[in-house]
Amino acid sequence: MEYKTPQFFHLMQYAAAADGDVIDMVSGNPDWEPPEAIRKGLHRYADSDASEFQYPPSDGLKPLKHEIAERRAVDPDRIIITNGTGEANYLGMARGLESDRGDTCVLIDPVYPYYLGKTSMLGGQPRLVEANRDGTLDSADTCEAITDDTALVVLNTPNNPTGAVYDLEAIRAVVETAADHDALVVVDEVYDHFDLSGTFESALTLEADNVIVTSGVSKSMAITGFRVGYGIFPPALVDAAKTRHMLTNVTTSRPAQQAVYNAYRESTPAYYQAARDRLCGRIEAFTDGLDAAGAEYTTPDGGFYVLARFEGFPGTMDNVKTLIDEAGVAGMPGATFGTARAEWIRFALVTPRTAQAAERLVSYFDAR
Amino acid sequence: MEYKTPQFFHLMQYAAAADGDVIDMVSGNPDWEPPEAIRKGLHRYADSDASEFQYPPSDGLKPLKHEIAERRAVDPDRIIITNGTGEANYLGMARGLESDRGDTCVLIDPVYPYYLGKTSMLGGQPRLVEANRDGTLDSADTCEAITDDTALVVLNTPNNPTGAVYDLEAIRAVVETAADHDALVVVDEVYDHFDLSGTFESALTLEADNVIVTSGVSKSMAITGFRVGYGIFPPALVDAAKTRHMLTNVTTSRPAQQAVYNAYRESTPAYYQAARDRLCGRIEAFTDGLDAAGAEYTTPDGGFYVLARFEGFPGTMDNVKTLIDEAGVAGMPGATFGTARAEWIRFALVTPRTAQAAERLVSYFDAR
Repeated sequence: MEYKTPQFFHLMQYAAAADGDVIDMVSGNPDWEPPEAIRKGLHRYADSDASEFQYPPSDGLKPLKHEIAERRAVDPDRIIITNGTGEANYLGMARGLESDRGDTCVLIDPVYPYYLGKTSMLGGQPRLVEANRDGTLDSADTCEAITDDTALVVLNTPNNPTGAVYDLEAIRAVVETAADHDALVVVDEVYDHFDLSGTFESALTLEADNVIVTSGVSKSMAITGFRVGYGIFPPALVDAAKTRHMLTNVTTSRPAQQAVYNAYRESTPAYYQAARDRLCGRIEAFTDGLDAAGAEYTTPDGGFYVLARFEGFPGTMDNVKTLIDEAGVAGMPGATFGTARAEWIRFALVTPRTAQAAERLVSYFDAR
Repeated sequence: MEYKTPQFFHLMQYAAAADGDVIDMVSGNPDWEPPEAIRKGLHRYADSDASEFQYPPSDGLKPLKHEIAERRAVDPDRIIITNGTGEANYLGMARGLESDRGDTCVLIDPVYPYYLGKTSMLGGQPRLVEANRDGTLDSADTCEAITDDTALVVLNTPNNPTGAVYDLEAIRAVVETAADHDALVVVDEVYDHFDLSGTFESALTLEADNVIVTSGVSKSMAITGFRVGYGIFPPALVDAAKTRHMLTNVTTSRPAQQAVYNAYRESTPAYYQAARDRLCGRIEAFTDGLDAAGAEYTTPDGGFYVLARFEGFPGTMDNVKTLIDEAGVAGMPGATFGTARAEWIRFALVTPRTAQAAERLVSYFDAR
């Protein structure tokens, strides 16, 4: 397995070294405050008995598991608290690829690049299926790609990078076809609190025994560095995932688990609503700019990102660097996300300077 | 991969459900206070800017890496901060077993059971080599077991469960033989701060390009629940390990990293010396009891554990349960650690009631 410095890292270094002021729209780090209860929970934990600093149960603190179980309406025994949604995806994908179900992993293009990397690390072969032009799931094409070689399908809704929120019936079709071919489906719902359309439905509602749902609080609580996520497994699949979790990480960091538990208990829905409202305002400002710049885009129904295509200015690494140098706006080349959106550029709206970035793009493309 | 509830968990449940008072000598959780700087570091972190709550670099906070690099006298680029020593071992073992070096992993019996589990999870075949009767490394037998099929050797010094501190020349012989067969050697030094003999030397001093050294602060700072460890890789092997770390966990929890950095900066050697002195007192009290009970044992040169053999009372699960019920002392069956010490029982000295446990064992075996 060869190491490649991730492109976002390369771009952030390039942007940091640029002469002028650059607005960072590369990384997916929320720029807003976490719930106050996160800070309070850490303070409280810091003063707790030393025995609280020792190993929690491998699959997570019991109260935290119960809190999540209640919110997701599942049996707590199905939950593993993981080192972020990233580990939950690793555990879920391993359940498919370590089995004798086949070795192909169906992924949707544009694709979050870590899914490709995990597939390869776990010895699988990726098969990319193009999303619809608006980023939604093309369930007919996806179902057609599922064969007896398919061990696994990975879906992500709300989607990074397209901003699409998948229709539950489209997911159901894929899940049923996967079941026909003895394949698992991992549905990564880490942006579930950023459904801006009001139409998001969790794949948990399908109650399918081949579906693993992953999520976490990195985005919803604005604490990407804490690494608290979870996987919800079908009862027959959870034990082997617990074993892998234990053999990989032993357990998830306890200060972070405790702070997150505190935030679940003490935060209100208003916190999440404020984050959505903030994002909606930014999307409006940014897409107004894209309109003025003559770009093609789809208004995101969820998540943090806008994919845009500028006529005659494909989203190559060179052009993205040109935007950094000449417009002072840093995005991500579409080729980072597979082949389907290689001409596009992804902009992350997790900066308070989104409107200013839009103005800069308008000026830049006006002058071209 | 089948899930088995770990035996220590099973035993802790059994001990908790026992009628009488039971002294827990099962788990390896330090029972003493962490450095005060851990608590202070968490408080300080809880009040930091929200940007500090976002992703740290995947391979760890730079100041923490530099702190460790200075203490271990290695280039910081060779270090990955991991979710505990457990993840560091996973990354190190994967470097051997994912390669085309072979698929056999040489392990020393008695063996820390996670090494067996990781070997199997990573698709390898374990080959057990018995340690010397006093728990030290039998380098002749170990070297003989290394063949062209060998991808990996895993050593642990100071050793869990034997308490042996390996001689550097014995390690060197194994490392050189491994190199001759293109095999890697992972040396787990997580008990490095609990060398009670003054003879421990890190395998880093060999400066061998097939040696990966792992360690962490779970034991040394009495924070097993924080999950902060590290792997030190040869320059040619570090990049692929970084990739696996990123694809598995993205990064290690930041509150824990920050607290550990603070403890490195503000703690003094006196903290570690006090922990060693405490352990030495317990070992003396406990081995006095073992002498009085007529048990065979080796006084540990390092680590937290004493392995003991009681004539006519092999360390089976049944007998260990009998000790819980009738003596009020909970240990671990030797069969948990492979076959070489199946007749023995491991006692963890991380309880303030070590002397009382010794008295109980003396009374119990007197009365038998």
